[in-house]
Amino acid sequence: VSIVLGPNHYGKAETRLVRVTREPGRHVVEDLNVSTTLTGDFAASHLSGDNSNVLPTDSQKNTVYAFARDGIGSPEDFGLRLARHFVESQEPVTAARVSIERYGWARLDVDGSPAPHSFRRAGGEIRTATITHGDEGTWMVSGIRDLTLMNTTGSEFWGFPRDRYTTLPETRERILATALDARWRSVTSPGGERIDWNARYETVRAHLLSAFADTYSYALQQTAHAMGSRVLKHLPEIAEIRLALPNKHHYLVDLSPFGLDNPDEVYLAGDRPYGLIEVTVQRDDVPAAPQAW
Amino acid sequence: VSIVLGPNHYGKAETRLVRVTREPGRHVVEDLNVSTTLTGDFAASHLSGDNSNVLPTDSQKNTVYAFARDGIGSPEDFGLRLARHFVESQEPVTAARVSIERYGWARLDVDGSPAPHSFRRAGGEIRTATITHGDEGTWMVSGIRDLTLMNTTGSEFWGFPRDRYTTLPETRERILATALDARWRSVTSPGGERIDWNARYETVRAHLLSAFADTYSYALQQTAHAMGSRVLKHLPEIAEIRLALPNKHHYLVDLSPFGLDNPDEVYLAGDRPYGLIEVTVQRDDVPAAPQAW
Amino acid sequence: VSIVLGPNHYGKAETRLVRVTREPGRHVVEDLNVSTTLTGDFAASHLSGDNSNVLPTDSQKNTVYAFARDGIGSPEDFGLRLARHFVESQEPVTAARVSIERYGWARLDVDGSPAPHSFRRAGGEIRTATITHGDEGTWMVSGIRDLTLMNTTGSEFWGFPRDRYTTLPETRERILATALDARWRSVTSPGGERIDWNARYETVRAHLLSAFADTYSYALQQTAHAMGSRVLKHLPEIAEIRLALPNKHHYLVDLSPFGLDNPDEVYLAGDRPYGLIEVTVQRDDVPAAPQAW
Amino acid sequence: VSIVLGPNHYGKAETRLVRVTREPGRHVVEDLNVSTTLTGDFAASHLSGDNSNVLPTDSQKNTVYAFARDGIGSPEDFGLRLARHFVESQEPVTAARVSIERYGWARLDVDGSPAPHSFRRAGGEIRTATITHGDEGTWMVSGIRDLTLMNTTGSEFWGFPRDRYTTLPETRERILATALDARWRSVTSPGGERIDWNARYETVRAHLLSAFADTYSYALQQTAHAMGSRVLKHLPEIAEIRLALPNKHHYLVDLSPFGLDNPDEVYLAGDRPYGLIEVTVQRDDVPAAPQAW
Repeated sequence: VSIVLGPNHYGKAETRLVRVTREPGRHVVEDLNVSTTLTGDFAASHLSGDNSNVLPTDSQKNTVYAFARDGIGSPEDFGLRLARHFVESQEPVTAARVSIERYGWARLDVDGSPAPHSFRRAGGEIRTATITHGDEGTWMVSGIRDLTLMNTTGSEFWGFPRDRYTTLPETRERILATALDARWRSVTSPGGERIDWNARYETVRAHLLSAFADTYSYALQQTAHAMGSRVLKHLPEIAEIRLALPNKHHYLVDLSPFGLDNPDEVYLAGDRPYGLIEVTVQRDDVPAAPQAW
Repeated sequence: VSIVLGPNHYGKAETRLVRVTREPGRHVVEDLNVSTTLTGDFAASHLSGDNSNVLPTDSQKNTVYAFARDGIGSPEDFGLRLARHFVESQEPVTAARVSIERYGWARLDVDGSPAPHSFRRAGGEIRTATITHGDEGTWMVSGIRDLTLMNTTGSEFWGFPRDRYTTLPETRERILATALDARWRSVTSPGGERIDWNARYETVRAHLLSAFADTYSYALQQTAHAMGSRVLKHLPEIAEIRLALPNKHHYLVDLSPFGLDNPDEVYLAGDRPYGLIEVTVQRDDVPAAPQAW
Repeated sequence: VSIVLGPNHYGKAETRLVRVTREPGRHVVEDLNVSTTLTGDFAASHLSGDNSNVLPTDSQKNTVYAFARDGIGSPEDFGLRLARHFVESQEPVTAARVSIERYGWARLDVDGSPAPHSFRRAGGEIRTATITHGDEGTWMVSGIRDLTLMNTTGSEFWGFPRDRYTTLPETRERILATALDARWRSVTSPGGERIDWNARYETVRAHLLSAFADTYSYALQQTAHAMGSRVLKHLPEIAEIRLALPNKHHYLVDLSPFGLDNPDEVYLAGDRPYGLIEVTVQRDDVPAAPQAW
Repeated sequence: VSIVLGPNHYGKAETRLVRVTREPGRHVVEDLNVSTTLTGDFAASHLSGDNSNVLPTDSQKNTVYAFARDGIGSPEDFGLRLARHFVESQEPVTAARVSIERYGWARLDVDGSPAPHSFRRAGGEIRTATITHGDEGTWMVSGIRDLTLMNTTGSEFWGFPRDRYTTLPETRERILATALDARWRSVTSPGGERIDWNARYETVRAHLLSAFADTYSYALQQTAHAMGSRVLKHLPEIAEIRLALPNKHHYLVDLSPFGLDNPDEVYLAGDRPYGLIEVTVQRDDVPAAPQAW
């Protein structure tokens, strides 16, 4: 017959791991949500329920916890260790992907001093990493999610085409707000030198925020492009960056029925619908890597 | 410089549309969540904030509501009308994608008779459609999401490899539960004959459920493959189907510390982590269409 | 000092329990989310960390699973068994509350026949029960949640007062939609006769839906009151019922800017804000029972 | 008949309001979610759909936006202005409650300097206020929600009773984590002097965090009580405080099957079930105010 098994993979999603490193007088918390995905020769399981090639997802979960015993360091390093392990130890596995969310914890400040072992969740913002390793190569994608940003001025929107269905007035003054979702692929290190992924993350994050704040914006597209290109300009070790930015609309409320003006002060924060801008900014001298995403 | 604008698109996400068709004595409700995405020549907006090619997302929203005035019919037909409109009416637009969620409403039964205009949300289950239309072709992907299924027996899991991190016991009796997420691509109609998308949806759905119930399962992979291949076997008009099935684990509770046995009766329903099986089943005589997804 | 410990209680929230009853050729699924709360003499734990009166919440969870071994029957019966156990077996415990959510599962139909052991989650709608038992008495509150309802006609809203801030036009035709949240307290059975709680639930649910469909509505308040009073009229065994009904607004879209009329057909389904109507309907010859809620 | 209309109220929930105060070179953002609830003589609306006493919830929403034109200042002050307005301007209204969530925004730091008009959402943590004003009095309840806290040591749990269903081992070392939900009622200001609610909020928050960090804990009850009593000890203007603390369990993972020890380093963060501790700490010389909550 002409019906065939196509691409397939499997794994364990959302293994919740918290690691406490107990340095004297100063604990460190690493809080991760780890998902593993294996690709390889699993046809027999699909076709006949023969699981001789299928390492249980329960074992993958156990591996995440066991590997954490030796430390995490960065999501990227931890994920790469895991991905290599699955490919090297399981003959049918040709590639492994490890996707990690990292939740931040901020040290409490008590009576002016940093607390040794007390923390609060630094809510919202999530750091991500997707490590893909296999026969065809190794790719490192890092990211940030759910970081909500707002400029209260410095944003216009006009000059757009008007068709039969266009009623939107042009504006020279609006709130620009978004929930940042950015992922960037690092140029793979050829010599295998050690990379400080945590420092790199902080640097990328700072450039994204600076570009958001510094760009006088005529379109969210322009802001998105400015954020991405600023990262690439400053970090030659980043090959490409992808941004998905919802336009979190803030509508100026018409107060005139109540006899009031509204000089750009009172806004309704809308839920749905929302604009959505998606863009890739990339180096044209670095090969594309669709497998990384 | 070597930094360039890569792939980009934009649109309006989650326009919430309810349409009531008021037939005498019998209303019909169509409840959709519509997202539109346009691809084309928007470089000027990214590079300099020149929006002369950027039809506002607000206009896209308006178009969704205006087109609903003439009826919806099926998510696939409605989405195709919208996608064609954007491509044909906006010169810079080379392709449009319309993604739709459709929420079901069941007619209330009052004193044994179907109510003419009273309904309840048929919760959970969501019907989806993704229509992609542009210079390179037209693709129709239909789907179902969030339909949670359970077999209380007829599922085993054994014969898997055991490594250092494997502690899972083999089992000949377990609950198999999942939240169905399936999407299928139709073979594009060459002659343009009219397709009854609503009927097709019901047929695919019935085959998926039957295959889930009828498959004695040695692996969730096997069940996933059986569901997909059954659809392709019965519907030559489907080119490929993709399934993503979380393994919603139900753990048999050990009651022995309390002096009780547990003959496959009492289970803990786990939240996280969960296994995740992803598979494509396809015809090998139909060209692939990565642009459709 | 004048600072004192006030009311306090503790327990285990959201123990997820699935029970399969394996009748030959026909399995039955009961899917519950159980929360237990104990009240009593726990002052020492608060004041000095002396836990000698504090049955661990982990033990409460274990008890839920162990008691399920003997069957569930109805959330109300199961909860009462648990509540009595905690009060009777733990000397410091003066009262226990057991709150249960029950999720429905519908049997799959395969090729026209009911499947013996295959099910789908009947999404949305959740059945609830709150059982309170202790020194002061026993109260049974049953309920339903998240059942979204819509009348596409038969709803008006006019005759309301207009103040400086009122811009809402009067309407003689609107969609009336809500997500039903109803809880009803049963008159406690003095003789201790056995009650068929599952049948009572179905009866109350049917009356609520009938009243929603049958009431020509001039206000959501009127609909809410009609639903509650219909239940009390038909079921003398119900002492009071409380309803909380969000007004899920559907806004008629103005299509006139596009040269189109909109004869009550195309609506925008809003998320926020929403009206919220809360009402109690009660018998005036039954004592109030604030402890039950 | 004996069936009567009981307590009832209605209002507009979740009006989303963002106010920008545009001081030269330094904007300020206030981001609120406002819900209004009116109590009074609305019997006619329930019984016959006569709405002559029912100020539309749409007007309540409009009032929220209109009042924001004159500034917000603090959720407490803003809510009190709104509550008074409804009671004073609507004859049938005997009491109004305004419940507010306030979301924090942190100013971005760009190249070492605070940005004049760029912000990020300070995620997680939500400030709340519930203002109740009417014929019987005025009550101010302030609060904080969704602030997740963790102590990585300094927590034990032992000495608890063991029944047939107890399997939990005693522990002298565990992670203590919770999501703070605290609400405190202020002693009503008799002389009507102006209160700096924003400063009061920061003071209460600091005491709660300090007590969490400083308490060597033998039970989450003890920590909860320490947090509440510390607030009352330091702030005579607070009459009572209510805490609801989920015990966000972190389970030490048993790595011994893999030949590894686990010296309090690797934890599984559980979702459900969770312990839940609820406690009130109050002054015994201040009258109770059940209407405030």
